[in-house]
Amino acid sequence: MKSHTEYLTFNIPARMGFLNITPTVGEIVRQSGISEGLLLCNAMHITASVFINDDESGLHQDYQKWLEQLAPFDASPTRYHHNRTGEDNADAHLKRQVMGREVVIAVTKGKLDFGPWEQIFYGEFDGRRPKRVLVKIIGE
Amino acid sequence: MKSHTEYLTFNIPARMGFLNITPTVGEIVRQSGISEGLLLCNAMHITASVFINDDESGLHQDYQKWLEQLAPFDASPTRYHHNRTGEDNADAHLKRQVMGREVVIAVTKGKLDFGPWEQIFYGEFDGRRPKRVLVKIIGE
Amino acid sequence: MKSHTEYLTFNIPARMGFLNITPTVGEIVRQSGISEGLLLCNAMHITASVFINDDESGLHQDYQKWLEQLAPFDASPTRYHHNRTGEDNADAHLKRQVMGREVVIAVTKGKLDFGPWEQIFYGEFDGRRPKRVLVKIIGE
Repeated sequence: MKSHTEYLTFNIPARMGFLNITPTVGEIVRQSGISEGLLLCNAMHITASVFINDDESGLHQDYQKWLEQLAPFDASPTRYHHNRTGEDNADAHLKRQVMGREVVIAVTKGKLDFGPWEQIFYGEFDGRRPKRVLVKIIGE
Repeated sequence: MKSHTEYLTFNIPARMGFLNITPTVGEIVRQSGISEGLLLCNAMHITASVFINDDESGLHQDYQKWLEQLAPFDASPTRYHHNRTGEDNADAHLKRQVMGREVVIAVTKGKLDFGPWEQIFYGEFDGRRPKRVLVKIIGE
Repeated sequence: MKSHTEYLTFNIPARMGFLNITPTVGEIVRQSGISEGLLLCNAMHITASVFINDDESGLHQDYQKWLEQLAPFDASPTRYHHNRTGEDNADAHLKRQVMGREVVIAVTKGKLDFGPWEQIFYGEFDGRRPKRVLVKIIGE
C-alpha cells in the first residue's frame, strides 16, 4: 500500500467564496503514482468546506444567497451564543455543516474517477486569511 | 491491497425520489472478495445523492417535503441565478448538498458493517434520466 | 495493509446533545499501530451523527437552536408522516442529515491529521438510550 499526503493553503479575499481546486487535486493524484485507491480532501479549518458540485457562477451565487438565508451572518452577541466569546463567525460554522467538511473520491486508472460535471471546490465562509486543505491518497 | 470498482445506473421516473440500493451494494462487496476495508459509494451526478437512513416510506415523504421547503423547485429565472442559464434544476443542486454526495462504509468480515437500521439510498432531485453511481472498495 | 475496527457505545441523557470523542478516537489510532492511512468514524444509528467542528459550548447551543428551527421536534402525527408509525423522532432523522453520518480523517505519522481547532463530536438527536459508533482504520 502506498500513501501520499499534501497540504494546500488558500486565502479567499471575501468572507464567503468558492474556489475550483480540481486541477490542483488532479495533479496531486498524478504525482502520487497511485492508480487505484481512495482520496480524502478536507478543510482543516472548521469554518470552511470542501465539496463537489458544478462550476457555474450563477449556481455559486445561489449557494451564497441560500446559505445566508439558512444561517445569516450576525456579528452581534444576540443571535448566536458563539459570538459572545468575541468571535463573529458563528454563521460560518453553521454554513460549513450544510456544505460539508470533506469529500472522498475514487482514484481509478491513475485519475479522479468523476462523473461529467463533478468539480471539487474549496468553500470559504470566514475568509480573508490563509487556511489549509489536506489531500491524502491511499492505494496502489 | 485489493480494489474493486463498479458503476451502477439508475433512472428515477419522477423529479425527486429515493431508491434502496443496499442489496446491490452488498452483492458488490461479496463479489469483491474483500473482507476488511472501506467502501465508497457516491453519486456521479451533481443533482443526486447517496445517503444512509431508514427505509420507511413516511420518512421519505418527510424528506421530500422538508427539502422542498429548504430549497423550493422554481424553474423561473427569478429565484435562482443558475436557472438563467437555461437550466431549471438549481433547487436540485441545493437539495443534494443537504443530503450529501457520498457515503463511506466499513467492510468487516466480508460484509457492510451496519447498525440495525442503516440502509443505503440513491437520492434523486432531478430525475427522469439515467444517472450513474460509483462503488469502490479497497482493502484485503 | 492493516485494518483495525472498534465499536464505541454512548448514552446521551438528553434528546439532543454533543459529546467530544476526540481523545477516544485518538487512542484507537495509537492502539492500531497504523501510521499512514484513513480512518472512518460513523454513527451506526440513523438519528445520530459524527461530525467535526469546534469544542465551544456557545456554538453547540447555536447548533441546537438552529437545528430545531430547520427541523422542529413534533411528536404529533400531523407534521411528519414518519410519526404516524408510532415513532416520535422524524425530526431527528432530518437533523442528522444536516450534521452528517460520518467523518473520514487522515492518519499521518500515527496521529489524527487535524487542523488547529478540529475536534470529533458524537451528535445525538434522539437520545436517552445507548447507541453505537464505529471506528475503522486502514493503512500501514
